[in-house]
Amino acid sequence: MSDTNISLIVYGKNDLRLEERPIPEPGPKEVQISMRSVGVCGSDLSFWEKGRLGNLILSAPKVSGHEPSGVVTKLGSEVTHLKVGDRVAVEPSKPCGNCFYCRRGLYNHCSKPINSGVLTRYISHPANFVYRLPDNMSFDEGALVQPMALAFYACERAGLRAGQNLLVTGAGCLGMTVVLAAKVFGANKICVTDVLQKRLDFIHKIGADVTVLVEDNENPELAAKRLVGMMGVEPDISIETSGSQSATSTAIYANRPHGMILQLGFSIDTVQIPLVVATFKELDIRGNHTSRNSYDKAIEAIASGRVNVKQLISHRFPLEKSLTAFKTAASKEGAKVIIDCSRPNGI
Amino acid sequence: MSDTNISLIVYGKNDLRLEERPIPEPGPKEVQISMRSVGVCGSDLSFWEKGRLGNLILSAPKVSGHEPSGVVTKLGSEVTHLKVGDRVAVEPSKPCGNCFYCRRGLYNHCSKPINSGVLTRYISHPANFVYRLPDNMSFDEGALVQPMALAFYACERAGLRAGQNLLVTGAGCLGMTVVLAAKVFGANKICVTDVLQKRLDFIHKIGADVTVLVEDNENPELAAKRLVGMMGVEPDISIETSGSQSATSTAIYANRPHGMILQLGFSIDTVQIPLVVATFKELDIRGNHTSRNSYDKAIEAIASGRVNVKQLISHRFPLEKSLTAFKTAASKEGAKVIIDCSRPNGI
Amino acid sequence: MSDTNISLIVYGKNDLRLEERPIPEPGPKEVQISMRSVGVCGSDLSFWEKGRLGNLILSAPKVSGHEPSGVVTKLGSEVTHLKVGDRVAVEPSKPCGNCFYCRRGLYNHCSKPINSGVLTRYISHPANFVYRLPDNMSFDEGALVQPMALAFYACERAGLRAGQNLLVTGAGCLGMTVVLAAKVFGANKICVTDVLQKRLDFIHKIGADVTVLVEDNENPELAAKRLVGMMGVEPDISIETSGSQSATSTAIYANRPHGMILQLGFSIDTVQIPLVVATFKELDIRGNHTSRNSYDKAIEAIASGRVNVKQLISHRFPLEKSLTAFKTAASKEGAKVIIDCSRPNGI
Amino acid sequence: MSDTNISLIVYGKNDLRLEERPIPEPGPKEVQISMRSVGVCGSDLSFWEKGRLGNLILSAPKVSGHEPSGVVTKLGSEVTHLKVGDRVAVEPSKPCGNCFYCRRGLYNHCSKPINSGVLTRYISHPANFVYRLPDNMSFDEGALVQPMALAFYACERAGLRAGQNLLVTGAGCLGMTVVLAAKVFGANKICVTDVLQKRLDFIHKIGADVTVLVEDNENPELAAKRLVGMMGVEPDISIETSGSQSATSTAIYANRPHGMILQLGFSIDTVQIPLVVATFKELDIRGNHTSRNSYDKAIEAIASGRVNVKQLISHRFPLEKSLTAFKTAASKEGAKVIIDCSRPNGI
Repeated sequence: MSDTNISLIVYGKNDLRLEERPIPEPGPKEVQISMRSVGVCGSDLSFWEKGRLGNLILSAPKVSGHEPSGVVTKLGSEVTHLKVGDRVAVEPSKPCGNCFYCRRGLYNHCSKPINSGVLTRYISHPANFVYRLPDNMSFDEGALVQPMALAFYACERAGLRAGQNLLVTGAGCLGMTVVLAAKVFGANKICVTDVLQKRLDFIHKIGADVTVLVEDNENPELAAKRLVGMMGVEPDISIETSGSQSATSTAIYANRPHGMILQLGFSIDTVQIPLVVATFKELDIRGNHTSRNSYDKAIEAIASGRVNVKQLISHRFPLEKSLTAFKTAASKEGAKVIIDCSRPNGI
Repeated sequence: MSDTNISLIVYGKNDLRLEERPIPEPGPKEVQISMRSVGVCGSDLSFWEKGRLGNLILSAPKVSGHEPSGVVTKLGSEVTHLKVGDRVAVEPSKPCGNCFYCRRGLYNHCSKPINSGVLTRYISHPANFVYRLPDNMSFDEGALVQPMALAFYACERAGLRAGQNLLVTGAGCLGMTVVLAAKVFGANKICVTDVLQKRLDFIHKIGADVTVLVEDNENPELAAKRLVGMMGVEPDISIETSGSQSATSTAIYANRPHGMILQLGFSIDTVQIPLVVATFKELDIRGNHTSRNSYDKAIEAIASGRVNVKQLISHRFPLEKSLTAFKTAASKEGAKVIIDCSRPNGI
Repeated sequence: MSDTNISLIVYGKNDLRLEERPIPEPGPKEVQISMRSVGVCGSDLSFWEKGRLGNLILSAPKVSGHEPSGVVTKLGSEVTHLKVGDRVAVEPSKPCGNCFYCRRGLYNHCSKPINSGVLTRYISHPANFVYRLPDNMSFDEGALVQPMALAFYACERAGLRAGQNLLVTGAGCLGMTVVLAAKVFGANKICVTDVLQKRLDFIHKIGADVTVLVEDNENPELAAKRLVGMMGVEPDISIETSGSQSATSTAIYANRPHGMILQLGFSIDTVQIPLVVATFKELDIRGNHTSRNSYDKAIEAIASGRVNVKQLISHRFPLEKSLTAFKTAASKEGAKVIIDCSRPNGI
Repeated sequence: MSDTNISLIVYGKNDLRLEERPIPEPGPKEVQISMRSVGVCGSDLSFWEKGRLGNLILSAPKVSGHEPSGVVTKLGSEVTHLKVGDRVAVEPSKPCGNCFYCRRGLYNHCSKPINSGVLTRYISHPANFVYRLPDNMSFDEGALVQPMALAFYACERAGLRAGQNLLVTGAGCLGMTVVLAAKVFGANKICVTDVLQKRLDFIHKIGADVTVLVEDNENPELAAKRLVGMMGVEPDISIETSGSQSATSTAIYANRPHGMILQLGFSIDTVQIPLVVATFKELDIRGNHTSRNSYDKAIEAIASGRVNVKQLISHRFPLEKSLTAFKTAASKEGAKVIIDCSRPNGI
């Protein structure tokens, strides 16, 4: 390949290809960015492993990746708050700005959303969704801004307040960032469940107070009793990050009445859950989809040291080794896998 | 029977008995009430037809009924805001006042709840949960205060505001009171679904703008498309009153993103629903259990004529004919069935 | 004047001039509108009578008016949801769409706001803030959409719910629209205060349950006692529409603890109020500035007949008689004064 | 004095007396407590220095003090969750449990509130408002539970979330606890203003990021500009702890639109503030009065080390030296002054 703009394209289930694409020129309100570190996320894996993400079916090949950092290389004519050479994190959405949802600030529900795939050498992106990184933040940390922004947004959306007790189901990357964010929000006791002990060991190290190994086919009501016993209190709030129906069910049984189950994980088409228990308890089962207006907070929390995201990074691969990177991430052998999108010569 | 205090006791599935009970004396903070009109509700029927209500199993015989009106016949020593002869509606709960939930005003989640069964001649009840009826309200209207209080509470809990478009799934008594309440809250377009056309005809008469006949085994996604088409707009809020899993699913598919599904109906143990759709749309699926602090508002709305509950009453039976009353209610032949608990001689 | 685009310009205190302006061509996302009925509002009067509105000083001459209706005469190249000939109401703001506030949907706090003055023959305006009127709505009703949208927004922002008791201080146009909106929101008892009996008589006719004549120099604590006595209950919520410091103070004394004072009226630079009383009562004193996303609801409420705004219109003048119109509005002799901006020949 | 139950009574302005009182026996739901460490608070000082607190006039002599810790010495007949010898913190309110506010969980607005004065040897108090201290917490820390509970409640009531920028006006004891709580809530930048540099130095040491010395007669608009410049950003939220009208005004000018001013400080009867600025900005000026349901969270935060309250304690005096203790507190020479209410022989 000539490497003008090598890009990682997901064509369908188990079909991931590196292809040459043209370098996009920025529109008047856009900037062109040379990509650096990009994180691999469970939703990238899902499109590759299953050809879908929850109920979103992959209908056409698309550039993969949505946890980007990079360097500004060109400015659109109307861009004033950035300059060439700025090191940046990028919020991958491109909302229309005009629809019912955009007008209300709910841009993650934009009726016509187009996401930039970022596992590529260059993107052009609306300057409004590009954020300058402070000098003390690395590109790897920049790649973690997207997942930390999501975790901050999730904690805010769950109404998490200092002193509350929190259940997090799932100890994957999503669960890890939620635990880091919940510590910043002042959560009291944090309990995490997972089916893998090594993940629980790791998440305990980065902040979980109590960890509970569960089994996929465990009775959710009994699992709930067990974890409430270990936690010593019913959680005020549960954040479900695994997409497993038994995790949602366990949270419904475990959580105290008049509390909140925030559903972050994408589950399969339909799930079987004890809705009547949630009805009696007057629980909120609240969906969460990406984030809104949380990049600034995530960047400040990382730059100030209130959140340490470096400890989450377990592997790094160059863009050319993306398939290995995806396989490593899928193996659940580590935590966050980073793909370095710089050209081999570093430009 | 000697008729000191004939009471309707549900002993288990299909086992309803009229029995003599002692007349309860009021404690210091209680009043004794001679019951008058009492409404029959779906949850009364559920204990009788199934021996359970949602996941609540009937574990011991209990007096049935929880939609009461009556006349104060004795006062406890510390009661000052009521007097003998007052015509009253009664909120059937007896919260402890001391637990985590009571302290926070969430008395419908009291850790030690005891409900007064009210299909009987006399009850004694905490004066704090007994409400004087204005002179222009009948006992039958008084019996409708409990369901209207629930409907008011549900609309408030759903965050319903003037100008919003509302889907109500289920056109039974619960759906009817929700429609009446939603009109008072200023809902714009109200769409109601049910599996029985005659119920839809009735609910249209009392306020629904659009009615949609659905079938039990209809694909919820298609049902949602159909109703949105008929409604002309996606609902901002859905209130599910039927307890049917396909109704919850239909609401999830139909409702606009960033909206609310209020779950009022008690479903079976577990239901199969498209949670991932709710996750992407960032919906709230919020449980609702009875009501809190809504009696005053319901009484004022009825007394002022803003709500006409008389139109809901289709049948009346004396306490002695309770079984017939239950059978009538179960047949879905009418709307609200009232049982008159007065002694035959009217005392 | 040749009448290409006669416009009413406020040059400063007591300096209102009719001047010729060029007809503005619409940008790509704008539409050109031939103005029809435009309402006169207290804030228009304020700039003319005082050269200011609250703490906003008139720094340069500007076209007056912000309650517009009209007919679309030209479309910008990118406009698709409107067509020439559409009868419309116009939201006069032109938010930037990019700032901190616009991104969050708080476009009434846009950092760079430019309002269209609408007392003119033609304006060009962002199509996004132009709303088609249903066929059954007149231009005069269209002119009332802006104030009704504000009243709807205010009731929503005040958290007004069905069954709550409301105090409205001030029976001017703002107070009138708030009363109409509050009825749609299901307010229980509505009490209105003013210093003019004839205004109180009018507002009673259109929906206020209780009216209380107050005096400007009355002790607010005593006024509060008097009005609570007449109302029979402390208001849950107060909406202050007069801008008078004694009205705000009266509301603070009258309102029940843990309630809301929504401040709509623009007061002078600083006011003297019993903040310590609000502190003890844990009141919210919440500011309100114009509206957001309420035009659709206002139009639906008017078109469906749930709100009758025609009863508010007391006077009509042609654009050429604007000064008389302003004087009439300032005299408080009637309710809403409408200026007809059509050309004399009706085009 | 025989010292059965020496108590510190405030009789009026500048009239503080130590007097003998009978030892109160606990009612059935109460416990008797032998007092230990009790903190002195600005509101105690206010009743002594001015004979009033805000608009509350001291109408009869009353036992002073409301920041108590102690040891349970007797149990009422119905008390089960405490035992003799338990070391405890006490929430000084005795709400009725029956009024409009108590029913809604708003017990700090109870219509018939009676506070226990706690600068005494013994009190009897509702067991429901008595909280066991963990073994690792001292009585001095126990005395700080009340002010920390208030600070937690205030941050929650202000809607403070991780990542937000906070202005605290006033660096007294109230300001100090608010800063400690705000750190736990994950506040980003915290700026504190005061008129005394040494207080600012201290509060900087315990967590404030930016401190700004202001003058009592400084123009609030200019002070606001100055502090926003030093802070580098407009605060999202301001918490006013001083009761000074110029502090409230400064916060109104400084805070970003659509934010919150939480008013904790008790000001004089009426204050002069730029309400019109708050109206345009759509600020919430929200009153705060003591706290609700925050003791558990405060105790957990102190016991877990997330909050260090020991650093706030600057002076200790025995109950017999209460006047000196009050004078020391009034001199603003230190931070928190503790009065030890134990008998000299330690019993």
